[in-house]
Amino acid sequence: MHARNKYVYLFGGGKADGDQSMKELLGGKGANLAEMSKIGLPVPAGFTITTESCAWYNDNDHQWPEHLHDQVLDGIVHLEENMGARFGDAKNPLLVSVRSGAKSSMPGMMDTVLNLGMNDQVVEGLAKKTKNERFAFDSYRRFIDMFGDVVMGVDHEHFEECIHNMKSEVDVKLDSDLDGEQLRDLVDRYKAVYRRHTGFMFPEDPYEQLRYSINAVFNSWNSSRAIKYRQINRIRGLLGTAVNVQAMVYGNMGDDCATGVLFTRNPSTGENKLYGEYLINAQGEDVVAGIRTPEPITSLKKVMPDSYKEIETIATNLEKHYKNMQDIEFTIQSGKLFILQTRNGKRTGQAAIRIATDMVDEKLITTEMAVRDLVEPQHLDQLLHPQFTDDEPIAKDILGTGLPASPGAAVGKVIFDADNAEKAAARGESVILVRVETSPEDVGGMSAAKGILTSRGGMTSHAAVVARGWGKPCVAGCGDIIINYKKKSFTNGKITIKEGEWISIDGTMGIVVKGKKELTDPKFDDHFHKFMKWVDKFRTTKVRANADTPDDAAKALEFGAEGIGLARTEHMFFGDKRINAVRRMIIAETPQERRKALNILLPYQRDDFLAIFRLMGNRPVTVRLLDPPLHEFLPHEDDEIIHVAHELNIPAKVLKHKIQNLKEFNPMLGHRGCRLGIVYPEITEMQTRAILEAAVTLKKEGLDLTPEIMIPLIGTVEEFIDQREVIDRVASQIFKEMGAKVDYLVGTMIEVPRAALTAGKIAAEAEFFSFGTNDLTQTTFAYSRDDAGKFLIHYVTHKILPDDPFQVLDTEGVGRLVEIATREGRAVKPDLKVGICGEHGGEPHSIAFFYKTGLDYVSCSPFRLPLARLALAQVHLKTQQQLVEA
Amino acid sequence: MHARNKYVYLFGGGKADGDQSMKELLGGKGANLAEMSKIGLPVPAGFTITTESCAWYNDNDHQWPEHLHDQVLDGIVHLEENMGARFGDAKNPLLVSVRSGAKSSMPGMMDTVLNLGMNDQVVEGLAKKTKNERFAFDSYRRFIDMFGDVVMGVDHEHFEECIHNMKSEVDVKLDSDLDGEQLRDLVDRYKAVYRRHTGFMFPEDPYEQLRYSINAVFNSWNSSRAIKYRQINRIRGLLGTAVNVQAMVYGNMGDDCATGVLFTRNPSTGENKLYGEYLINAQGEDVVAGIRTPEPITSLKKVMPDSYKEIETIATNLEKHYKNMQDIEFTIQSGKLFILQTRNGKRTGQAAIRIATDMVDEKLITTEMAVRDLVEPQHLDQLLHPQFTDDEPIAKDILGTGLPASPGAAVGKVIFDADNAEKAAARGESVILVRVETSPEDVGGMSAAKGILTSRGGMTSHAAVVARGWGKPCVAGCGDIIINYKKKSFTNGKITIKEGEWISIDGTMGIVVKGKKELTDPKFDDHFHKFMKWVDKFRTTKVRANADTPDDAAKALEFGAEGIGLARTEHMFFGDKRINAVRRMIIAETPQERRKALNILLPYQRDDFLAIFRLMGNRPVTVRLLDPPLHEFLPHEDDEIIHVAHELNIPAKVLKHKIQNLKEFNPMLGHRGCRLGIVYPEITEMQTRAILEAAVTLKKEGLDLTPEIMIPLIGTVEEFIDQREVIDRVASQIFKEMGAKVDYLVGTMIEVPRAALTAGKIAAEAEFFSFGTNDLTQTTFAYSRDDAGKFLIHYVTHKILPDDPFQVLDTEGVGRLVEIATREGRAVKPDLKVGICGEHGGEPHSIAFFYKTGLDYVSCSPFRLPLARLALAQVHLKTQQQLVEA
Repeated sequence: MHARNKYVYLFGGGKADGDQSMKELLGGKGANLAEMSKIGLPVPAGFTITTESCAWYNDNDHQWPEHLHDQVLDGIVHLEENMGARFGDAKNPLLVSVRSGAKSSMPGMMDTVLNLGMNDQVVEGLAKKTKNERFAFDSYRRFIDMFGDVVMGVDHEHFEECIHNMKSEVDVKLDSDLDGEQLRDLVDRYKAVYRRHTGFMFPEDPYEQLRYSINAVFNSWNSSRAIKYRQINRIRGLLGTAVNVQAMVYGNMGDDCATGVLFTRNPSTGENKLYGEYLINAQGEDVVAGIRTPEPITSLKKVMPDSYKEIETIATNLEKHYKNMQDIEFTIQSGKLFILQTRNGKRTGQAAIRIATDMVDEKLITTEMAVRDLVEPQHLDQLLHPQFTDDEPIAKDILGTGLPASPGAAVGKVIFDADNAEKAAARGESVILVRVETSPEDVGGMSAAKGILTSRGGMTSHAAVVARGWGKPCVAGCGDIIINYKKKSFTNGKITIKEGEWISIDGTMGIVVKGKKELTDPKFDDHFHKFMKWVDKFRTTKVRANADTPDDAAKALEFGAEGIGLARTEHMFFGDKRINAVRRMIIAETPQERRKALNILLPYQRDDFLAIFRLMGNRPVTVRLLDPPLHEFLPHEDDEIIHVAHELNIPAKVLKHKIQNLKEFNPMLGHRGCRLGIVYPEITEMQTRAILEAAVTLKKEGLDLTPEIMIPLIGTVEEFIDQREVIDRVASQIFKEMGAKVDYLVGTMIEVPRAALTAGKIAAEAEFFSFGTNDLTQTTFAYSRDDAGKFLIHYVTHKILPDDPFQVLDTEGVGRLVEIATREGRAVKPDLKVGICGEHGGEPHSIAFFYKTGLDYVSCSPFRLPLARLALAQVHLKTQQQLVEA
Repeated sequence: MHARNKYVYLFGGGKADGDQSMKELLGGKGANLAEMSKIGLPVPAGFTITTESCAWYNDNDHQWPEHLHDQVLDGIVHLEENMGARFGDAKNPLLVSVRSGAKSSMPGMMDTVLNLGMNDQVVEGLAKKTKNERFAFDSYRRFIDMFGDVVMGVDHEHFEECIHNMKSEVDVKLDSDLDGEQLRDLVDRYKAVYRRHTGFMFPEDPYEQLRYSINAVFNSWNSSRAIKYRQINRIRGLLGTAVNVQAMVYGNMGDDCATGVLFTRNPSTGENKLYGEYLINAQGEDVVAGIRTPEPITSLKKVMPDSYKEIETIATNLEKHYKNMQDIEFTIQSGKLFILQTRNGKRTGQAAIRIATDMVDEKLITTEMAVRDLVEPQHLDQLLHPQFTDDEPIAKDILGTGLPASPGAAVGKVIFDADNAEKAAARGESVILVRVETSPEDVGGMSAAKGILTSRGGMTSHAAVVARGWGKPCVAGCGDIIINYKKKSFTNGKITIKEGEWISIDGTMGIVVKGKKELTDPKFDDHFHKFMKWVDKFRTTKVRANADTPDDAAKALEFGAEGIGLARTEHMFFGDKRINAVRRMIIAETPQERRKALNILLPYQRDDFLAIFRLMGNRPVTVRLLDPPLHEFLPHEDDEIIHVAHELNIPAKVLKHKIQNLKEFNPMLGHRGCRLGIVYPEITEMQTRAILEAAVTLKKEGLDLTPEIMIPLIGTVEEFIDQREVIDRVASQIFKEMGAKVDYLVGTMIEVPRAALTAGKIAAEAEFFSFGTNDLTQTTFAYSRDDAGKFLIHYVTHKILPDDPFQVLDTEGVGRLVEIATREGRAVKPDLKVGICGEHGGEPHSIAFFYKTGLDYVSCSPFRLPLARLALAQVHLKTQQQLVEA
């Protein structure tokens, strides 16, 4: 518990009011700084204004709560004491940074102000004290720029224009080439820009600067880009952001200064070696923004061996303390090391697995912690990203190489603008977003793109960090290409690519290739297999795959499927030799004609099942009977109709009439699912025969299999009974004919609200349920998946829905039906087998819900299986952890 | 309680084992016979085999339960003692009838055998005893016919062919013209027919005849026609049929004999006068089957004054006893009156109301009983059947006149075959079924037809009784026309009407007219208004109407609406001057353009609401905001598109593109309902403005109205909040602009499962719920109302569904959602107003469910209002009665 009315938490000097556990109140950054200070790291002193203050501010018409003002003043005193300098004192000035920091990390999302406390007097004092006029005025002009941009909304570009003009006038290339006198001039020009755009003089009072800046951080919580980031990342339920006010330390006071970022291990590969970048004589922002290309951290060993050694020791201690790979920001001020920030580092899927397994080997963590904490389900998804099929692209197609910023290969049309990328993706196009660099304004387009390519910036640039976080392929800092936004093209000097042309990128290798390259599935290393073994050790819910073909089934087994949860039989209907038999079945006027056509299909279906069952061995396989409306199997274009009619040897008029007859206003709600088998029991008979003849054949070969026959789209128990009778009748015929029996189960999809609402009755007759959450979502919301795109984008953007319910299960509505059906089904039949086979079976948030609802298994596409296995292990471990803690 | 293992209940001689209350066990007929006997009516002695025996028989592979055989033998002994004759005794023979009788009346559905006990010896004895060879052999040949037909499945036609041939041979016209010798010959021929078709000799043993006949009754319970009748009439949950074995009495023993049927009041008009028909020297079957045209009952006063007087007394006593109009079958055997049957008589709606009000005036019953027991909701529906607009059809169009067998006028295409009638109706055609006479095999087609016309048969013929029961217009016994089934036409000698041509019938007047006559709404008499006043006295749930226009609203008030539960605004969009503005709104690319088009619509909508609100005065009016998908307002045919594009002054290509864009795979689940107002808030703004500007204007005129604004298709509370904000914002603008306020409510349709499942949250924001059970049924079942016809017929026919859920609310699934939403909504907001505005609001079974769920009102089409009011009063009274009885 924290004290009432305590809005400010101090840290620094090896002590802190807060600690790591207080992320909710102090934000991730604030809690981290407190913890770092507490464990003795050389953190510049500072204080954190709580997230509650932010909430109070935003709820109370932008007023501060009582006492906040006094506590901030006390905080400044604490800083002054710790750093031996005074805020606003021209002789011995203290400058501070003001940063946001919510509970969850939101890189680049929140506005930051540096060098606060500067004014015309202080800058002179600083110049004198540091004997570095250049540094002092450079800091001042940076401060005016940031304060103007972040706090007062003066576009950064206007300041950039100033410095650009200045450089032209004095004929220098780099900002750092400007001398003190020139920067002094620049400060005046910046102030003029400020005045022109705000209508006010630049505030000289450091306390006024501080108040404005704190408010700007509070306000930034509700900026549209922050809101958008939270949406895309599903960050919900937070109070607001904390504000961290911290003494500035400088990496740009001369050549014994440096600033850098590093990861305690390689965030791309997971290799246990310091990995990072630094710049001599620079501010931290220069590294992150990717404006100057930094040096690799290893070279610091030569340049500043003592500091490097200290960093190594700190890195080791931090990993021991946090039990995780750390992402550290540091500054060396006149030879003295300060750690500005440490946090769990973002990493690629490959790195996550490698780090988790290595740390277990190093006895840093247990296997349980490795599974629970060190790898995100999305990491595994990312691991499964495709790669280029041919390892070596033809040289002439290579447009350039850049940093392998986020692994995986992607193919798409070039788009240069984030908004357009979003729109094109909404139209269903594959897009590669190509930017000089990316900024927080671009996150929408970045999220929509298949991959990201930048021509500037390092491994820790905005593009790289965000892309890795999302597991999206990214090639960053590809200096081989020149982008021209106006002409909407980029060129490597030889080849020019226009917007809309196809390119391929490989974020694992850092290669950009012209055209649409073929992609192939990834292979897995020993770390992966080791890790997945641990995952399965902690997993209590079974996983199955949705697989319709022997190929799918083989893939499913490779990825750890313990059975098939959904084998759709209709996909088997489209084969060359089969489709005409299917069509004959559809146009049949009598059960006899229909049966004749179905008899042609029988051997094909039986062979399909033979192959799948044989592959799956003794594992359960759930076969769903025919589901889609029959018109899906008929042609719809005039010339095609004539062709098919000819093949079927019937007049085109007859076929056309049949097609017309089968036409439906709302096919999703039409004559499909079990409604087909009920009106045409011959179809159910044939399918049952194919399944069970295959099963009996394999039984005779010694397999111990129990096929599960699943009746789709049940809404009433009477439907189920009707179809079950057909199945049982055909089964006993087959067993008699073949002189052998197999056990089989008959169950149903629960994918219609009425089935969930009458699950008790249905469970009395059925041996298993499998939730078809795709259709259940369609009917519970009354959304057509094919049409809802139009308003769903609006809905998610405007927060009417937290997520697209077809991607993340709506636990409140659809989930309630899942709970009702599971509870009431099991009340009637305690051993009822219950699973889920909708797309949600491969989505971690939804999987956590299914675990909590007590389902026996989730079934998803083979490629989502590792993710599903990890998500299930994690929710189980976290639930166990909560039970222990409670 | 009845005794265990008692399968046979005796009656006769002023005593009985059973009574009226035992319908479940003894069937309606058996309980009636017991009661009649108990209250001293001259009932021929007999016994009833219980419905439990039937159930046991059908559940146990057509075996009889233990003891049944012995108890039947005891029953025969009881008959013999009472009637002073012996079963199978040639000298003093006792003949019996075997009839079915389930709990609910199913006229014509169950097979009956008469004259059982007859054989070659008995017939001679009977001839001798009655000195009437003709009668004896006529009875014998009738018995062989019925036994053959009903018990052994020999088609009645074969026997008819025999008698027809016999009449030709001896050159007589009527059956009764055949003499004893000829009938003796006929019996031989009948036996030969029997032998030829069954392969067995005709059974001479009366006990064997009895056993076979009882089994035939048991079997008839599961005949397809019996099943069909129960389906159509929604008769469920019965054990089976009872079997009534009763001593035969004969109306065909000579001219002092007669048989007849009568109603204690006129079943067409309700007039308090005996109403019925009889035939001298005939069996009861002759009257009911309509083979001979009978005499009106009043003429019996002259022919047999004593019997007539006795009948009058009995009729009065029966009405006193049963508190209801009775339908009586009687036989006079050699001058002695026997009452064979009495039951509550079927009647027209007009008669039901008249009888109910008269009986209250006569102090026979209370108003409560009148409302609860004497009028069915369907009777009121029937009362509301249309009539011909012009009272006197032009003489040349009149095809003929017949009996006014069931009131109301109907228009349809002539179909001569019941199956075809059913098919045509399923295609959506209006059909008049035209038959010489109808039989139980025809009930499917009769149910599907708009009206029924027969050329033969009386007011109590099968066609007349069934049609009255269903409130379906029927003209019976129209001897003016000759039907030729082969040629598929009928003629009155001047005009010939072929199958498929249109005719009109008026079952109130008994007129058949060529062509499609215009129909008009009925007028209501004083009895109706008196009755409806009582109805409203016992009604506790409010009624509203679904009404979109001032005309609808006026009709609603006329039929007793207490408000409007659903005013659909989209119907107002189709007016000539409006539709183009609507289309402009749809093709608008910006909110500005959209608003411009909407501004054109505003005054029209406002005027609509002004008119409706003014009419409804202070009564509540619920206005639903725009609901259908926008493409419904655009043209779809090419030439129409060109025309509309021209009118809108845009290129046809642009319009076509827009239409293409708006096309949806499943429009029912697409961009409609509140999803329109959320993406295009301008629409909600305009509609709110129209509603509230109209309301404020009338408020200024002194009306005290509180409009209810209903947001359609809500699935999440966030949607509701979004739209409510728009409405509240516009409202305060209007109140400011107009300088006056009105109270208004904002609520929602609950028509999507998710809304019902999250009703608690929605109720926190909404002031009322209205269940849209049409859409809720569509989404809960995943049935498209437009498409489900194809399988729903199959479903209802095959008992997969008890009813079409779009007609009768599915209480188990859809109803559960209604309960959940009502309960959880009221838990959050106890005074939440909850109603229903789907079609189920006008269906009695559904209405009873809504009453029990505690809804505040039901809203239905104006014409269903009287029915809804009665249904609500009845369910309330019956619930009260159950509370008292419990």
